[in-house]
Amino acid sequence: MYVVVVYDTAAERNPKILRICRKYLHHVQRSVFEGNLTDGQLRRFQAAVESVLDLSYDNVLVYSFPPAAVPVRHAWGAAEPEPTDII
Amino acid sequence: MYVVVVYDTAAERNPKILRICRKYLHHVQRSVFEGNLTDGQLRRFQAAVESVLDLSYDNVLVYSFPPAAVPVRHAWGAAEPEPTDII
Repeated sequence: MYVVVVYDTAAERNPKILRICRKYLHHVQRSVFEGNLTDGQLRRFQAAVESVLDLSYDNVLVYSFPPAAVPVRHAWGAAEPEPTDII
Repeated sequence: MYVVVVYDTAAERNPKILRICRKYLHHVQRSVFEGNLTDGQLRRFQAAVESVLDLSYDNVLVYSFPPAAVPVRHAWGAAEPEPTDII
């Protein structure tokens, strides 16, 4: 399925979350990733993310779509940052 | 149409963007909003957002879906922040 992931984590955990997201998905904005995952990949991705989250503070949103319903994405403003712009 | 909006703006412009987003959409995560907009509302929302963006730095992603394809949202980790948690 196609997923869009937005994370809101404390700064000290951003590098770990970023590394996990990059392993599974494409980077489209500072804290936004997208890509196609199988059910198994999504489970592994979720387990990896949850292993580093502080459940009392961090929050990750995962929007999922059937393959035929990939959303249209518009970007307003500056070009998407290069991965090197990321904290 | 249904939209999901994620903004990545410099801190000094966050309050303005937040105010505009709240006028049109529901707040679901620190910098993530969702809701149904007509084409006219989307145009007005875009004009309002672009009037405060610094186009050399700020970036706003807008995912749009036909009404029949509203995405499934999963939240991992902490509960979504209250609007008062926002900078």
